[in-house]
Amino acid sequence: MISKLIDKIVNTGAPIVVGLDPKLDFVPEDIKKRCFEEKGENLEGVAEAFWQFNKEIIDNIYDVVPAVKPQVAMYEEIGIPGLIAFKKTVDYCKEKGLIVIGDIKRGDIGSTAQSYAVGHLGGVKVGDKVFKGFDEDFVTVNPYLGSDGVKPFIDICNKEDKGIFVLAKTSNPSSGEFQDRLIDGKPLYEIVGAKIREWGEESTDGSYSNVGAVVGATYPEMGKVLREIMPHNYILVPGYGAQGGKGKDLVNFFNKDGLGAIVNSSRGIIAAWKSDNYKQFGDGKVGEAARAAVLDMKADIAGALAQ
Amino acid sequence: MISKLIDKIVNTGAPIVVGLDPKLDFVPEDIKKRCFEEKGENLEGVAEAFWQFNKEIIDNIYDVVPAVKPQVAMYEEIGIPGLIAFKKTVDYCKEKGLIVIGDIKRGDIGSTAQSYAVGHLGGVKVGDKVFKGFDEDFVTVNPYLGSDGVKPFIDICNKEDKGIFVLAKTSNPSSGEFQDRLIDGKPLYEIVGAKIREWGEESTDGSYSNVGAVVGATYPEMGKVLREIMPHNYILVPGYGAQGGKGKDLVNFFNKDGLGAIVNSSRGIIAAWKSDNYKQFGDGKVGEAARAAVLDMKADIAGALAQ
Repeated sequence: MISKLIDKIVNTGAPIVVGLDPKLDFVPEDIKKRCFEEKGENLEGVAEAFWQFNKEIIDNIYDVVPAVKPQVAMYEEIGIPGLIAFKKTVDYCKEKGLIVIGDIKRGDIGSTAQSYAVGHLGGVKVGDKVFKGFDEDFVTVNPYLGSDGVKPFIDICNKEDKGIFVLAKTSNPSSGEFQDRLIDGKPLYEIVGAKIREWGEESTDGSYSNVGAVVGATYPEMGKVLREIMPHNYILVPGYGAQGGKGKDLVNFFNKDGLGAIVNSSRGIIAAWKSDNYKQFGDGKVGEAARAAVLDMKADIAGALAQ
Repeated sequence: MISKLIDKIVNTGAPIVVGLDPKLDFVPEDIKKRCFEEKGENLEGVAEAFWQFNKEIIDNIYDVVPAVKPQVAMYEEIGIPGLIAFKKTVDYCKEKGLIVIGDIKRGDIGSTAQSYAVGHLGGVKVGDKVFKGFDEDFVTVNPYLGSDGVKPFIDICNKEDKGIFVLAKTSNPSSGEFQDRLIDGKPLYEIVGAKIREWGEESTDGSYSNVGAVVGATYPEMGKVLREIMPHNYILVPGYGAQGGKGKDLVNFFNKDGLGAIVNSSRGIIAAWKSDNYKQFGDGKVGEAARAAVLDMKADIAGALAQ
């Protein structure tokens, strides 16, 4: 699976993943009004608004980026209707040729991790047919439970040609509370990074592994060290844009081959229409503003990598 | 919320939570056949089988235990129909007066953790009404992201009278890979335990906190230390029964007041009908066997605590 992602990154020239993390605040009034009229002013109405909002973004960016990353929490927040909208979004993105990274950050004991892996990357056999719960291409995984919680995902990656990104150093301000604590002189995130490298050797696909890592753009110095520890593991980099990461901070996450990292932006793209930078498209012009924000981000990263 | 759980533990005399973690292998043939005929041999059929299986267990145990703990992964494994069965199970358990601990092990950056907290413990305002996504009483939380990932849950606990259990030392064989690593001479799970105590001070309810911890029955010596580090935090103890934990191992997790711990068993109760120990009830007698297994577990724990 990682080679498919790399091909799409090379073809689009954009090591970018768009975070499809809808919030009602980001949805223009006319979409909300229409959806509430159609489905009611309730969770079904919100879910429909999320779906229509997502669709407008997807239709305007699918040819310029390789991948999207829906954050399942935003959908889970509104219960079953939200999860139906999540599935609809995943399926539609795949139809449009996008690679889908389900940002689920699941992690549990072996038998339970197996259920998450099957639900998001595999399929369930009932009678003589196989049914798929969600069917993303990649998911994110939490490492706190150790190998037991990660191996079931790797087995499914090998069986179904899928991939995962395991949290190493997250982008949030308090990520250091545990992740930066020193163990035998090394921070925990480096210990986890070394383990990700080891896990990655169990699922290679070309010169990179189907097992990647999550490292926040907000910690570029740590990204540099992790890049060296995990030379064959792709790094999914959240925290660009709204969380404070800039193009020049991203250089450390890439390898000398120009590959090795894919940078996420969510609010900066999906809520671009609300920003002064993109107000020329007009009020509620979600899709056009998102496309322009993607192209600006592409130029920002390319500029930083060219230096 | 923790005081409600404690009242129910005292009234039933059972510091026990039943893990509602259905698998198709645990469901008797007649239930499966009926559900596949009704809903089709597909994910809807499996979800209906999970629901009917759960209902039979709930109807037979609701008066002898204080709480249940559905593991959302087993439902997520079969996609949307599974999550609908999860919600139906949560709602039905609450109708029967049971306290529901959603075993979701979510953890993310602040704004995303907020969405999970709202979806599982809070409510979403749409127009002038509030709608609830899942509405469990407690959920489990992963601490890897630090305070940012936990505080949004605590805020909702305070607002809505709910509770959480944060992973400290998990029951699985590889939990030590990161959790046991020494930081300034102390294992990571103790550092996390100290943090849980601190977080717990932000949401107290009587002599215990709404913020509890997860510590596996399979590590009783570590449980003893964690019990001392977190005197006012309830400990949710998985790993009893099928995972290898025994009644005598549990003593360390309780305080001198006889409180402070609630022990989970899943397979040992919900699949009791398949075990030689309960075959006297007859093939497929899920409910009767589950009730007998609960009462045996209650006696096992009471015996251990009396010594």
